[in-house]
This record gives sequence, C-alpha cells and structure tokens, in this order.
Amino acid sequence: MTYNTLNINVPNHSYPVYIGKAIFADTTLLKKHIKSQQVMIVTNTTLAKLYLTQLIQSLNDWQCDYLVIPDGEQFKTLATWETILNALSKKKHHRDSTLITLGGGVVGDMGGFAAACYQRGMPFIQIPTSLLSQVDASIGGKTAINHPVGKNLIGAFYQPSAVIIDYGLLNTLPLRELRAGLAEIVKAALIKDKQFFIWLEQNFDEILALNDQALASSILQACTIKSDIVIADEKETHTRALLNLGHTFAHAIEHNLAYSQWLHGEAVSVGLVLAAKLSYNLNYLALNDLNRIITLLSQIGLPIDLPNHLTVTDLIPAMRMDKKIENNKLPFILIRNIGDAFIANNISEQDLLSLQ
Amino acid sequence: MTYNTLNINVPNHSYPVYIGKAIFADTTLLKKHIKSQQVMIVTNTTLAKLYLTQLIQSLNDWQCDYLVIPDGEQFKTLATWETILNALSKKKHHRDSTLITLGGGVVGDMGGFAAACYQRGMPFIQIPTSLLSQVDASIGGKTAINHPVGKNLIGAFYQPSAVIIDYGLLNTLPLRELRAGLAEIVKAALIKDKQFFIWLEQNFDEILALNDQALASSILQACTIKSDIVIADEKETHTRALLNLGHTFAHAIEHNLAYSQWLHGEAVSVGLVLAAKLSYNLNYLALNDLNRIITLLSQIGLPIDLPNHLTVTDLIPAMRMDKKIENNKLPFILIRNIGDAFIANNISEQDLLSLQ
Repeated sequence: MTYNTLNINVPNHSYPVYIGKAIFADTTLLKKHIKSQQVMIVTNTTLAKLYLTQLIQSLNDWQCDYLVIPDGEQFKTLATWETILNALSKKKHHRDSTLITLGGGVVGDMGGFAAACYQRGMPFIQIPTSLLSQVDASIGGKTAINHPVGKNLIGAFYQPSAVIIDYGLLNTLPLRELRAGLAEIVKAALIKDKQFFIWLEQNFDEILALNDQALASSILQACTIKSDIVIADEKETHTRALLNLGHTFAHAIEHNLAYSQWLHGEAVSVGLVLAAKLSYNLNYLALNDLNRIITLLSQIGLPIDLPNHLTVTDLIPAMRMDKKIENNKLPFILIRNIGDAFIANNISEQDLLSLQ
Repeated sequence: MTYNTLNINVPNHSYPVYIGKAIFADTTLLKKHIKSQQVMIVTNTTLAKLYLTQLIQSLNDWQCDYLVIPDGEQFKTLATWETILNALSKKKHHRDSTLITLGGGVVGDMGGFAAACYQRGMPFIQIPTSLLSQVDASIGGKTAINHPVGKNLIGAFYQPSAVIIDYGLLNTLPLRELRAGLAEIVKAALIKDKQFFIWLEQNFDEILALNDQALASSILQACTIKSDIVIADEKETHTRALLNLGHTFAHAIEHNLAYSQWLHGEAVSVGLVLAAKLSYNLNYLALNDLNRIITLLSQIGLPIDLPNHLTVTDLIPAMRMDKKIENNKLPFILIRNIGDAFIANNISEQDLLSLQ
C-alpha cells in the first residue's frame, strides 16, 4: 500500500492527509489515529451500501458503532446533526471516542461539526468519498450545517485527527459529481498556480477517466494549495478568504435553488466564470485568460451560465447575507492573472450588475 | 468607576476580566470590545426586567438587538440555543457582530455556545449576573447546552472577548443563589488556597451580607484560582480536571433530579462533602479538615447531604456517563489537604459505595 502524506500544521494542532488508493479501510492507518476503544462511523445511505461493511471489518478491534444518515445537501440540517449527537450519547461514547466520517462534503461537514460539539470536542477522522470533498471540503477544518437563512451558517473551525483520501472510492462516483469536484480543482489552480492550470487544460480528461496517476497528482496539488492557505490563516481573518473565489456567487446560486437541482461544484463553476468576468470588467483579467477559464470549465462538462430563470440581480440579497461581510462591505475574490487571485474590498452592487 | 482587571491568556487568545461595581453598562468598557456596528444581547426574562433597558441605553451607538429567553436550567436546550441562532440570522448579524450575554450560567453557557457556532464563531462579551457565574461559569471558555443524556454534553471551548463582573448586580440575587455561588468559591479555595479557605471561614457572612470589599476580594481570588488553572490547560487534557472537584457527584445529583429542585451550587456543595469524605475514607484527608469543610458549607446555609430519596448507588450510572471518563476509568478529584486537590485515577465503584 502506497500513499502520499501531506502534513497540515495549524496553531496547536498538526495532522496528516493521506492520499492513496485502497487505503480507506486500512487498519494500520486508522489505528494510528484512534485513541480509545470506541469508534462511531457516520455515513450516508448511498455509501453505506458500498463501503460500510469493509470499514467496519477493519475496525473489529474496537467498539464500532455507526449511523447512516440520508444522502443529500437538504439533510445538512440541525435535525440530522442532532441525530448524530443522540447516537453518540445513546451508545455512551466518551470524549476520547473517535468519530469517522465516510462520505462527501455533507457527511464530513456535519459529522465534523458533531465531533466539534460532542462533549466540547472529540477526535475525528475524515474519509472523504467524493472528488469535491477530497480536494476541498476535507481540508481546513471548516465544519458546518445549513440554516434556512444561509449555507454553513452554523458551524465551527475544528480540525480532524487525520484525513484519508482514497481515490479508489471515486470508481463508484457518478460522472456528474466527478465533474463537480473538478470545479474546486480548477479553483485551486486559478488562485495560486498557473502551471497547474495549464496541466489541467492538458489532463482534465485523464482525471475524468479516473487515471490513477492523474488523480493522485491533481488531488495532491489541490490539497497542497488549500493547505498552504489554511496554514497561513486558519480562522479566515485575512488570506483564507482567497479560497472563496467563485463561492460568494456559488452560495447565492445554491440559496436561490434551495440547495437542490445543482451540485455545489456546478454552482462553483458558474461562480468562477462570474468572478472571472467581473475581474475582466474591472480591467484586472485579460480577455484571453477569461476565455481560457470558460473553455476549460466547459470542456470538463460543467455549467458556465446561471440557471435559466436566475439573473445576477436575484443573487444579490443572498450575497448581502454572506458570511464574509464586514462593516457592510462584501469582499470579493478577483483574479489578476490565472494563478493569481486577490481580495478586492471595494466591489459595489453596480459592479455586480455589470454582469447582467 | 473603579475595577480590577484580571487578564486571561490562553493559546492564541487573551482577554480581560473586569471586576467592579456598577460597571456592567459602562459604554467605554463595552466599546473596547465591540468590533462592528452590530450587537445582540441575550438575556432571560428575570434579568430583562431588571437591567436590559440600562444595557440597551449604553449601546445606543450600535444596531442593538436583543433576545429574551425563559429563565431556568430546564431551558438550556438545543431548542433554546436554536432560537438564539435564528434571532442572529433573522436580524442579519454578520460574523463580526458582538453577542453580549447578560445572565447567569445558563445564559452565559448557551449564549456563548451560540456565539461559538454562529458563522463558525463571533465575538462575545459575558456579563455574568449570579455569584456562581461570576466566580466560575464565566471564566474559562466552556460553553454548552444540556442533552437528555447528560449536562453540558454538547458544547465548545470558546473564549469571550471580555468578561464584565459587576457585583452590584448581586443586590437583586436571591439569598439562596448567593449561597449557591459561595459553593464554587469554597471549591476554588479547597483546590488551591488554604489561606483563602481560612479567610472564607472568617468572612463568608460578609459575602452573604453583600459587603463590597468582601465581594471584590473573594470574586477576584476565586477567578484568579480558576484562571490560573485554565491558562495551564485550556482544553482540559490534564490539570484543568481539578476544577471538577465535587462536580462528578454534583452532575450525577442534578441528573437524578432532572436538573430541577436543586441549584447547581447546592449540588456542588454536597459533591464537595462527598469528595472530602471519599478523600478521608481513602486516608488522604484528616478528619479535622473534613469536619471544617462540612462546617463551613453548613454555616453558609448549603446542603451537605444527598436529597432524601437518593443514595450514592443511584448516582453511579450518571457518573459512568461523565465526560471525564477515559478508557473506562473515571478520574476523581480528591483532597490531600485543604488547598491541595489532586487527580486520582484509580477510584473504583467499591470506593464510591463506601460513602453509603
């Protein structure tokens, strides 16, 4: 069994991200990060059918309980989160028990937030199963649930004990979700690494074809970009905001679609296009670069336009409520060049309406 | 306006605890710790009648919203906590808004936990209004709500921006609650400061009579003891457990009384007696010291025996579920001498049953 290890060092905490194939149920790897005799696996109905048995078998040295939650962003709620806390207390888990999330962003975010709050914090291990959660959601310690007023409105910064990224799990991932994950990989390249963007232009089809080497390499690169940014600013007081490239738009799109119909990565793809167009309109980004970005996302098979019934005007109320607002100014992440994103604090509603 | 300031330095965060009279609504003091234009006050029905108007008036430079929750430990629930989060989002508070808790332990713990989770953490200022919350609950960053299975089972370590302890607020506190607060002051002395214990033997009646000097001095001493311990071990991985002296019993008593009938400090008083008796039974504590502890608590007017219908045997199931369990051993805090508590890891159920 081979894997790469990326170490993430945030203040007072350090943990490894393992990236490899067929490693998610490796007892030796798991054992390193389980402190006591108790383990609680949180997964969803879809992944339970595929991988839960194998994971439980690898944990037969421990008191291994599990909770299967419904699959879907619409279940990322206080009510579902409470069922995780209830399961932990019902099975008498102590605070040195380890929670393992086996799932995509929803399971990881919600399970992580349950781990953050159960007995004021228990250890947890993330096993992200979608490409999107492997390259983005599982790195950085953001845990959360949605609130009717906004996505991820309730949550905590809480770092896992370890992240096990097994790209073998992507074999069962629907193509549409694979594409959605690529949106976050493109985002990472746009923020910080032009060479990686060029590599993606040449190799995105290898990722979609699940070529091992392309997966291993692109996941490692995307995770490295994200972890570099997180290490510099864990609690998002300044530069971590760069990771929100495209996301202010994306969250507003998802909010308007009531978190249904579109996948997060699909909303991010359109968000990246809008952020790039805004950067072009404000004379930061060259037209040629704007077109390269749109072309790559389009070739991947991602949406590049808003859903038919939505306009930028429709997005503005949700953007006003965005978490990143400070003193009523909404910082936007713009792109100066491919691989060079920056935080612009002076964006007005007028600028946004130029995108119509 | 005069006050003492105690600075608490935990990793990556430092904040002041102000101790004085008639300082809770001082605009200058509050202003230092409010970052943006938004403030949300969380208080309960009892305190709203007494102090809310004055606090709001001192904050008329800001968008000042407030939420009044029902008074009582039975409302320290997920449901009430959710109403705080709903109020914040309904009034469009951003993550740089400041939440101010005006209340006792319930308001502080629950409001603090809402602040910890709203947008993954917003600043908050604690204004503790009961003696118990002034000397104990408001120091140390423990926030939480109760769960049917256990007290404070869901929560976070989250430090406030400032704590404003105004002992003038104690004028409206019922005598029974004042006594309950003294239980935590006695606890602090028992853990670390024999001279303070002797001082309490001589001056507890001055505290009960609300003598300014006695209040200022005892609150400062108790807070200093607690903050020294918290600074050394914020997340309770080792020595912070000393603060649980008497509390494993107390939580089990409260659990058995369904968090009603007895105040937390009353349960702590009996918990201190049981911890002292256990220390005596195991030959750590001298009989004379045991008697001094029981005498002081009794003179204060606190209970020193379990409620009539309960025995130590009844407490054991709840103690097993106690947060402090690691690898099925429940560490107990015992007393070697007055002012010298320690963590004993080898306490068995047999030892506990010796208390019958």
